[in-house]
Amino acid sequence: MKVIPIELDDRSYDIEIAQNSLSRIGVSLVSLGDVSRVVMITDENVEPLYSEEVSESIVERGLDVDVAVVPAGEESKSIESAYALWEQFLEIKIDRRSVVVALGGGVVGDLSGFVAATYARGIRFFQIPTTLLAQVDSSVGGKTAINLPNAKNMVGAFHQPCGVLVDPLVLKSLPEDQYRSGLGEVVKYGCSLDESFFRLLENNIQTINERSPEILTEIIARCCQLKAEIVSQDERETTGLRSLLNYGHTFGHALETASGYGRLLHGYGVALGSALCARLALRLSQQGDERFKEIDESWVMRQNDLIDKLGLPTSLSDLANLMDDKIDVSPKRLVDLMESDKKTEYGKLNFVLPTGLGKCALVRDVSVEDVVATLNNSF
Amino acid sequence: MKVIPIELDDRSYDIEIAQNSLSRIGVSLVSLGDVSRVVMITDENVEPLYSEEVSESIVERGLDVDVAVVPAGEESKSIESAYALWEQFLEIKIDRRSVVVALGGGVVGDLSGFVAATYARGIRFFQIPTTLLAQVDSSVGGKTAINLPNAKNMVGAFHQPCGVLVDPLVLKSLPEDQYRSGLGEVVKYGCSLDESFFRLLENNIQTINERSPEILTEIIARCCQLKAEIVSQDERETTGLRSLLNYGHTFGHALETASGYGRLLHGYGVALGSALCARLALRLSQQGDERFKEIDESWVMRQNDLIDKLGLPTSLSDLANLMDDKIDVSPKRLVDLMESDKKTEYGKLNFVLPTGLGKCALVRDVSVEDVVATLNNSF
Repeated sequence: MKVIPIELDDRSYDIEIAQNSLSRIGVSLVSLGDVSRVVMITDENVEPLYSEEVSESIVERGLDVDVAVVPAGEESKSIESAYALWEQFLEIKIDRRSVVVALGGGVVGDLSGFVAATYARGIRFFQIPTTLLAQVDSSVGGKTAINLPNAKNMVGAFHQPCGVLVDPLVLKSLPEDQYRSGLGEVVKYGCSLDESFFRLLENNIQTINERSPEILTEIIARCCQLKAEIVSQDERETTGLRSLLNYGHTFGHALETASGYGRLLHGYGVALGSALCARLALRLSQQGDERFKEIDESWVMRQNDLIDKLGLPTSLSDLANLMDDKIDVSPKRLVDLMESDKKTEYGKLNFVLPTGLGKCALVRDVSVEDVVATLNNSF
Repeated sequence: MKVIPIELDDRSYDIEIAQNSLSRIGVSLVSLGDVSRVVMITDENVEPLYSEEVSESIVERGLDVDVAVVPAGEESKSIESAYALWEQFLEIKIDRRSVVVALGGGVVGDLSGFVAATYARGIRFFQIPTTLLAQVDSSVGGKTAINLPNAKNMVGAFHQPCGVLVDPLVLKSLPEDQYRSGLGEVVKYGCSLDESFFRLLENNIQTINERSPEILTEIIARCCQLKAEIVSQDERETTGLRSLLNYGHTFGHALETASGYGRLLHGYGVALGSALCARLALRLSQQGDERFKEIDESWVMRQNDLIDKLGLPTSLSDLANLMDDKIDVSPKRLVDLMESDKKTEYGKLNFVLPTGLGKCALVRDVSVEDVVATLNNSF
């Protein structure tokens, strides 16, 4: 078992990563102390797989648990879903000493976290992420949110979980594309934050693609640790440090939106976004920008090679092959989308760009021309 | 001008109380630094009175401001109102560097605070409370909320304002019953927390009833200071200390609900609730409970006398006279309501009861019999 402590003053908690850990949730909840009752939120896909095991573990420890099941998919991150859950909480008498358990992927985690953050002005919530993406990303950092019809994650709160339990064995049941999507975020950590982790990934392609629980335990722990170090220093994204976690995301979000919500999985967008960031940094390097002097052709190829071997796209042509029908990923459309992203302040285009292997920086002065040229060269 | 600093680490802010201060909002907002734009939320009653003066002050300092007007009354503390505001924020491009200004009473403050707490995971908000109740209560402490159809304040967040500006002159335009309602909370502070403040109120009945700005400045400052001392020590209501602010509120909330949402003003419920708490404490004292040994008949009469001189109810008969039509305030109904209140933990009846003049304590073991007997004796 690996334990990653997340240091956030009185909001600190542990992430426990171990095979067969689902059945230990009851112990973890009781150890929180003073728990009146538990409500588990899960989705229609995860419920038949793991809900019973988790419920039994909770009941065995003498706690009452209700289960709320939401439809699978991004549509559940809506105000309507939140409203229904608040009403249900009231009905089953959830109080300030109750705990919300989120059993599922990012959608379930984000929705449950938001509902827990706002019910009775905030009650505890515990996460059991069941997708690789949620295990390496959304279970660390306390970001919770729902979507507005035209704006992803626009309504939310920072609300840290009181604990996180990760079982790499649940990834066995994950659909292939969702697993790859998680790897998109995994690669991001190596490329942008940790050279030794990048090498670890390069050296374990086969076991990663086979979903070996041993390598997954190692990978998840490393990703959580990397994210935890940044989040503890910039919990609410105020100093700019936390934005370094968004390597690949400015392009990624635009690609996701251009493809239609939920059609391009998040990690695919991040992987392709990372590849585009590398090309953009290379272009700036070739223009003589000193900040990117370590970025050359071979660096870009090496990152593309890793992304490619993990089954993820590195060019807009790859993206076109992935999607069944035509989508508009013209440079103009993508730039428009990036300009309306909530991370844009005072109308400037911001990117997290690589400055070397396992290093990156927030760059606030990227010109639209360089972005368009980079996109035009990546078909 | 009086300035009350609210000490809450990196969430600290000042409450400025001064006559004619509305026109200084522009200066206060600019001094926050890094403000992209401002959105003011107000209601249909307040908008024609003060919106223009506030807007002009903001525009004079070079900031853009949009105004959102919600219907006056408790119905605006709904998820539908919050949703409409989130959508409007998106449309007018409110970003993380924008500031929400709440110009109005408790409803506007609670709703605006909740919307600000959750838009883009939390943006700044500034309060200009225009009712006495909001000036002495909801503008301190960071509690924000909306209602569910059957549960007041059930969805919300702790979100501290970045500043509060109080102009006692705006109270000149407040309807009589709303002014009295504010005095209900004012009396609460004196009775439960500060003997010298209680005496100050006793000695200034006439100027208080005349709404003299000088005495109001003093009163508002004292109330904010008393609340601030408690909130700084127990921001999120976890230690029990903050519950001392709820003197009169257990009865008060039940009375409000029994009368129908919004028909009995909050401060009237608190005033009558305070009178009932005094009678309950007297009963326990007469049973030999040592905790209430300082509470005797004369103490109860003295509190009733002050409440009465401020035009507020001290008995269920007074309440019946206030309401146009019949309401069910039978002891059974009130006890049922108190048992379903969210402050009830593990099904026990909790009250904040007086232990002397300007002193109170959270009492967790009050029997239903004593509550019923107290209610029966107060018709």
